[in-house]
Amino acid sequence: MRIEQDCIGRLAIDDQALYGINSVRAAQNFPISTEKLNPLLIESLVQIKKAAAQVNREAGTLSLAKANAIIAACNQLLLGQHADAFIAPAIQGSAGTSANMNVNEVVAHLAERLNPGVKVHPNDDVNQSQSTNDTFPTAGKMAMLKKLPALIKSVELLRTALQDRATTFDDVIKVGRTQLQDAVPTTYGRTFRAYHTMFTRDLERLKAAKAGLEVVNLGATAIGTGVNATAQYQDTIVPAVNAISRLSLTQATDLVDATQNCDAEVVFSGTLKALAVDLSKFSNDLRLLASGPQAGLGELHLPAQQAGSSIMPAKVNPVIPEVVNQVAFEVIGNDTTVTLAAEAGQLELNAFEPIMFRDILASETYLERAISTLATRCVSGIEVDRERCATEVDRSAITATLLSPYLGYAKTTAIVKRAVRENCSVRSLLLHEQLMAPELVDSLLSPASLTGSRKPTDSAHVSGR
Amino acid sequence: MRIEQDCIGRLAIDDQALYGINSVRAAQNFPISTEKLNPLLIESLVQIKKAAAQVNREAGTLSLAKANAIIAACNQLLLGQHADAFIAPAIQGSAGTSANMNVNEVVAHLAERLNPGVKVHPNDDVNQSQSTNDTFPTAGKMAMLKKLPALIKSVELLRTALQDRATTFDDVIKVGRTQLQDAVPTTYGRTFRAYHTMFTRDLERLKAAKAGLEVVNLGATAIGTGVNATAQYQDTIVPAVNAISRLSLTQATDLVDATQNCDAEVVFSGTLKALAVDLSKFSNDLRLLASGPQAGLGELHLPAQQAGSSIMPAKVNPVIPEVVNQVAFEVIGNDTTVTLAAEAGQLELNAFEPIMFRDILASETYLERAISTLATRCVSGIEVDRERCATEVDRSAITATLLSPYLGYAKTTAIVKRAVRENCSVRSLLLHEQLMAPELVDSLLSPASLTGSRKPTDSAHVSGR
Amino acid sequence: MRIEQDCIGRLAIDDQALYGINSVRAAQNFPISTEKLNPLLIESLVQIKKAAAQVNREAGTLSLAKANAIIAACNQLLLGQHADAFIAPAIQGSAGTSANMNVNEVVAHLAERLNPGVKVHPNDDVNQSQSTNDTFPTAGKMAMLKKLPALIKSVELLRTALQDRATTFDDVIKVGRTQLQDAVPTTYGRTFRAYHTMFTRDLERLKAAKAGLEVVNLGATAIGTGVNATAQYQDTIVPAVNAISRLSLTQATDLVDATQNCDAEVVFSGTLKALAVDLSKFSNDLRLLASGPQAGLGELHLPAQQAGSSIMPAKVNPVIPEVVNQVAFEVIGNDTTVTLAAEAGQLELNAFEPIMFRDILASETYLERAISTLATRCVSGIEVDRERCATEVDRSAITATLLSPYLGYAKTTAIVKRAVRENCSVRSLLLHEQLMAPELVDSLLSPASLTGSRKPTDSAHVSGR
Amino acid sequence: MRIEQDCIGRLAIDDQALYGINSVRAAQNFPISTEKLNPLLIESLVQIKKAAAQVNREAGTLSLAKANAIIAACNQLLLGQHADAFIAPAIQGSAGTSANMNVNEVVAHLAERLNPGVKVHPNDDVNQSQSTNDTFPTAGKMAMLKKLPALIKSVELLRTALQDRATTFDDVIKVGRTQLQDAVPTTYGRTFRAYHTMFTRDLERLKAAKAGLEVVNLGATAIGTGVNATAQYQDTIVPAVNAISRLSLTQATDLVDATQNCDAEVVFSGTLKALAVDLSKFSNDLRLLASGPQAGLGELHLPAQQAGSSIMPAKVNPVIPEVVNQVAFEVIGNDTTVTLAAEAGQLELNAFEPIMFRDILASETYLERAISTLATRCVSGIEVDRERCATEVDRSAITATLLSPYLGYAKTTAIVKRAVRENCSVRSLLLHEQLMAPELVDSLLSPASLTGSRKPTDSAHVSGR
Repeated sequence: MRIEQDCIGRLAIDDQALYGINSVRAAQNFPISTEKLNPLLIESLVQIKKAAAQVNREAGTLSLAKANAIIAACNQLLLGQHADAFIAPAIQGSAGTSANMNVNEVVAHLAERLNPGVKVHPNDDVNQSQSTNDTFPTAGKMAMLKKLPALIKSVELLRTALQDRATTFDDVIKVGRTQLQDAVPTTYGRTFRAYHTMFTRDLERLKAAKAGLEVVNLGATAIGTGVNATAQYQDTIVPAVNAISRLSLTQATDLVDATQNCDAEVVFSGTLKALAVDLSKFSNDLRLLASGPQAGLGELHLPAQQAGSSIMPAKVNPVIPEVVNQVAFEVIGNDTTVTLAAEAGQLELNAFEPIMFRDILASETYLERAISTLATRCVSGIEVDRERCATEVDRSAITATLLSPYLGYAKTTAIVKRAVRENCSVRSLLLHEQLMAPELVDSLLSPASLTGSRKPTDSAHVSGR
Repeated sequence: MRIEQDCIGRLAIDDQALYGINSVRAAQNFPISTEKLNPLLIESLVQIKKAAAQVNREAGTLSLAKANAIIAACNQLLLGQHADAFIAPAIQGSAGTSANMNVNEVVAHLAERLNPGVKVHPNDDVNQSQSTNDTFPTAGKMAMLKKLPALIKSVELLRTALQDRATTFDDVIKVGRTQLQDAVPTTYGRTFRAYHTMFTRDLERLKAAKAGLEVVNLGATAIGTGVNATAQYQDTIVPAVNAISRLSLTQATDLVDATQNCDAEVVFSGTLKALAVDLSKFSNDLRLLASGPQAGLGELHLPAQQAGSSIMPAKVNPVIPEVVNQVAFEVIGNDTTVTLAAEAGQLELNAFEPIMFRDILASETYLERAISTLATRCVSGIEVDRERCATEVDRSAITATLLSPYLGYAKTTAIVKRAVRENCSVRSLLLHEQLMAPELVDSLLSPASLTGSRKPTDSAHVSGR
Repeated sequence: MRIEQDCIGRLAIDDQALYGINSVRAAQNFPISTEKLNPLLIESLVQIKKAAAQVNREAGTLSLAKANAIIAACNQLLLGQHADAFIAPAIQGSAGTSANMNVNEVVAHLAERLNPGVKVHPNDDVNQSQSTNDTFPTAGKMAMLKKLPALIKSVELLRTALQDRATTFDDVIKVGRTQLQDAVPTTYGRTFRAYHTMFTRDLERLKAAKAGLEVVNLGATAIGTGVNATAQYQDTIVPAVNAISRLSLTQATDLVDATQNCDAEVVFSGTLKALAVDLSKFSNDLRLLASGPQAGLGELHLPAQQAGSSIMPAKVNPVIPEVVNQVAFEVIGNDTTVTLAAEAGQLELNAFEPIMFRDILASETYLERAISTLATRCVSGIEVDRERCATEVDRSAITATLLSPYLGYAKTTAIVKRAVRENCSVRSLLLHEQLMAPELVDSLLSPASLTGSRKPTDSAHVSGR
Repeated sequence: MRIEQDCIGRLAIDDQALYGINSVRAAQNFPISTEKLNPLLIESLVQIKKAAAQVNREAGTLSLAKANAIIAACNQLLLGQHADAFIAPAIQGSAGTSANMNVNEVVAHLAERLNPGVKVHPNDDVNQSQSTNDTFPTAGKMAMLKKLPALIKSVELLRTALQDRATTFDDVIKVGRTQLQDAVPTTYGRTFRAYHTMFTRDLERLKAAKAGLEVVNLGATAIGTGVNATAQYQDTIVPAVNAISRLSLTQATDLVDATQNCDAEVVFSGTLKALAVDLSKFSNDLRLLASGPQAGLGELHLPAQQAGSSIMPAKVNPVIPEVVNQVAFEVIGNDTTVTLAAEAGQLELNAFEPIMFRDILASETYLERAISTLATRCVSGIEVDRERCATEVDRSAITATLLSPYLGYAKTTAIVKRAVRENCSVRSLLLHEQLMAPELVDSLLSPASLTGSRKPTDSAHVSGR
């Protein structure tokens, strides 16, 4: 065992451990869950450490030997080695200090191990020109940004599947429903195209969200004043991190603000929440339209993915939309947490970023996997019961809406009520009662007219007279 | 009393009433609160009715006499007359049908009253080419848009006040605080500038939010198929509404999607929520920094606005930030409601837009008034206790952070601990112990250095050796 | 105009106004909404003022003349007179000081007006032995308690209606549905009885919630130390308030805690939220089961309450459940606000009770009205389509579940799949394939067996062999 | 590899695997997170399987050999063996079917492995008389109940620590603060006793919550009708589970309701949320009262647990309260998720219990660990700066509140304003100006009087004259 010391006291630490006293204290102080820090958050911190060593070396405030040792250690860590040295819990106090110090300590110990004879201090050398105040918020945003492409790709996958279904179902006329009551007809092409359009907005919002996350406070050091960082460091650290991480970060112009306020996280979480709301609405629709198979709407057939009951043989459930619903609820709950954490920030810092990062990264991951699953295991295989859809349109009295411009709202109301009451078709009623010329009836109740493609003309309009 | 009839039955209605059977049924069916529909929502519906009459007249589906009667009635209503005829409650079922029909009925009755001899039907004529499915969502967005300029203006007012305070306090050095613990110094200029920067982001988000609300589904009629609307109507109704309302609406390209999905409302509510979070954090800071007057931080003096206690004489409370906090909590709660309502949409329509519109419009109103009040009754009059701020910086041991690059983190830790323990200044300790040249001490502990304006140089750096 | 003065300065006030300088400042400082304080909150404060005057008179700290003048003024106010003198806004800063002082001022001015020659001071006399710290939280709980009986009554009304429907539909067998997929049959009697049971739990929770609200901090004065109140006052004020208000309040044993913590409000709001969740689930079910009339489940008929569409003639929507859903969403949103406000309390007081009281009282009101409306305008008139329900059970393949104990899960799976695929009944398949004795088939597929009333026996069980 | 088959098709499964086709499909269908089902949920399901085998054996519907084989397998699993066979993800669709079938399959395979020659079917035998509809909700509640004692114990630990601090600080007089402004004095004994009282309420609520969770629907089978379960099974299964689990479950009287409604979960989550709100308020107070060490309130010293900054030497942060705050935010967010999931239940079942169980169990775990940590690593070691507290009371002008009953509110206001303005003590002002007899001043400004222990008397009262 080796002895390490901090401002609290001394602690014996396993000789082989790459972490140090700060890391151990964190593990002891925060035994909330077994969840460790997100690997992308660790990776981002290591990238910052590497970039800082490069920049400090250039600025002359870090000796060549130390800088090179640090960089070599970072390179090894960036390959994924020594992942178990990062023992700081995901849910931690101290505004990320434990995360930052865990990385500082691992880098320092590894640098010394790789370069016997070189002394590397976690604070003076690895953390040089930095503060947890700037490295942790920056690493959090970096991790969120790294999660984004996969999430965007999953939405694109879903859109492709929806587009494909829309094309396939373009000619399937079906009853529309507003407030769960029969409404004028539409087509399943339109239905799936509408979902496609909805998720296109989500896609655009996700892409736009990138910009908000790319503004970081690296170079701010403590509370944003940039204290203890050289001018050269402040000017070049962000480009250096970009070169390593292949991200496109920019340094905030007001580093004091950027250090203390978390509205960027609130807005990004809100974007994820909007996506979750859309996913939940879509999943609800799928489950409803596929209800049955016999005593439900039964218009859609979702691909069967697993047996649905331990007691009811051959029951099959819409399990994929169901898991998507639950992911949506989780993401919405996470948004509440993020909101509370952001609101709780005080003065020069928000101490509650660890839970924000944990929850936002979880939301991104859950959404990406749920959406991919939804696209590949459900949407792409959806089929329509064309016969059922056609039958329902045929017997739907609400198609009489099309007559309204010609007969007026009041008279049409009477026709609909009678058709439903007598369980006869609107068409037969019209013809039988000779309320309209047969050709006009045919024209108005044709699919093209019913679904709005064929437009009413002025000549016959009840109000035009 | 006159008798009116709908598909449910007959109802006697006051002869003088401009509203009709649908309005009365709504008032009877939804006795939830005494709150009526937002006047801007009514105004927007009336503007749509007027535009529709113009366009239908052009299209030849509405006779000249009817159209002119409708337009005349709308003009009178747009002057604010007959406001008490809009009896439909703010919280209503039926997806806004009651709101739309209340307007249809008032317009129709008023049109007939103003033009004896002309028959105007609420559905066939006033509502021609329209459905509640498109008029109500469009009117909701119009109302939100109309609220926006005042809200934006209030944020600008707040920013101006913050900018002014930042300039005034530019030279006031003060102790920074992270996690409520003393941190390196900053200035009140920076502090207020950071708030200014934060609200600038809110301002930009509010302006950007406009675009999301401007896309409307007018012309969609029932479920977005445009059934019963002429092509001419669909093409020209939105510009016609713009001409009347001076808004810049555009018609959604996918009217089916635009009729059923409410993510635009979720996103807008999220933007308001982000603003609320920022306001709450800011208010919390003000209340904390102004705590005292004797046993608190006491750095800021907020303008006294009212006596603060019924029992403790001369107590004065930060009442303006307190009311802003509460508005923020209300807006965040409203966002939860909007999220739930949007998620609950089913198939071709979201039936829960009435509560969404109510809550978003309330959030906009509350925010605008709270922010204006905050700017004029609080921020613009804030003063700083310069003496106290200076004293605190002088005795703050955490200023030793500046020595860290020269003495190293470990040695500096010992100095800080000793200074706090012995209640002496870092400066005197350094000089007494001859740990550093007096000139370097003076330089490092100068205001310029403490607040990061003066940068460390490479030559002396502990890690550069 | 008369001039009044407070610790801020002087203000001219209308001679006729019963309110005073504190009230006017509140109206000026908090122009957030036009909503005034809830009348029950005002009434409760007036009841406290009256009780305090009685008790202070007994204790000898308030002269007979002053006390009687105050009591006379309170009596007049409790009759509902001078309601427009309460100008303090519902959303206000200062932890209720404005509310309390508005009442103090109105009582004082009215007391003097009714008793010329007697001097009554808002603070020294009307507010004697009190602080806003104790009167406002107590009045808030009193108002919540006063709202409770009507809410409880509305739930009882709903339960009665559900019980009645359950009895009426006891013999109506119907297809069950889990995850929106056909499941084993049940009856509409059971369905409505289950809702009845659910709301019985809500009822019990509401009744139990009473106890949590009845513990008040009256007598705590400032921060709970009871400073400036006589021992006699502290001991007798709560019984005195009970005598006037007919409530059953008890004084908290720890007045310091009771003054600063709002978990009672959080818990009560949570109880309302649970009720809201149940109402929303129930409304969702009603809307789903009544979907159609032709292309939906169409099992239930809800009473038609208003025309459902401005464009689709004779469309009727489930408007009552829809408004109940929205009330539920609003109550859930209010719970978020209450949670945030409670969490934001600091040290000896929670300054955010005004918004808590506003939102909880609104939730109680909305719920009561929504539930009454639901009971009388919807549930009590629900009818069932018995024929449709029977037909669906007949053709439902999932009834084969009953065979599973005799044939085994695997073989039954094959039967169900074949029945659905071939669109034939399970019964005919069994008989045709001679898979089971006809008598056993009859017995297993009888209504009694299908709905679980008749139990499987051991003898034939596949696993018992 | 062995081949297994379900109603979807065939699948090859590792010969050694104890799980079967349903488990594998679940793992494939729900790749949302790597988190598996909570071990207590699994344990509870296994306990149900064991009890069911016992009861079915008694009822004669399960052969002796099969029953004994199942029981033996369960016993092995209850020792914690084969934990890696439970591969169903925590976040899953299908209302828990995957969880239930994973257990059924593992028990069946293990039973056969342990008893060569005995055939045990996952559905027919292990799941006999059961449905996921009843086993999963019951197991969920069992797991929540099992978590409860540790949570309750942690609150008791916290209460003990608070009680101890209250006793230790009983004589420490300090300035009270309402709305962060100086208020009348109190003592730290009272302050900590108030926290103790607050958490006592939480404790009582947790204990009371037990009853709500103990009502289970076991015996309901599919949708609550009890179909396919013998009467004997229904009557004895719950006692059998109690005997194995040492819980005190009771069977719901309305099994249909108990199968579909989740208000018990909403209420329990709400109880956890109320605890979270109290914890967050308490943590906020601790952080505020311990702010400094030099430029803050500095009244409390929290035990130092770790170095607080990577850049600022010797900075120490309130890391334990900070992590408690974050746990509180997470629990509040989880409550949002639970609310949404409960509201989304439809008809005879709530399909979203998996996410509810996951989040509630996480909340319980996080709370228990956070509270234990708070008690042992923070509260028990808190110290008070007695000197600072005394000094602040001495110079506090708001102590003049005690004079108000004798001098009147208006005159006292003038005294306080002057004392603050002239920065002199109220006492010296009173004596210097001869406003009051020195003995009365001494008496009123004595600690006993200031903190409310000594009461005002009637004789001198300004209003009594």
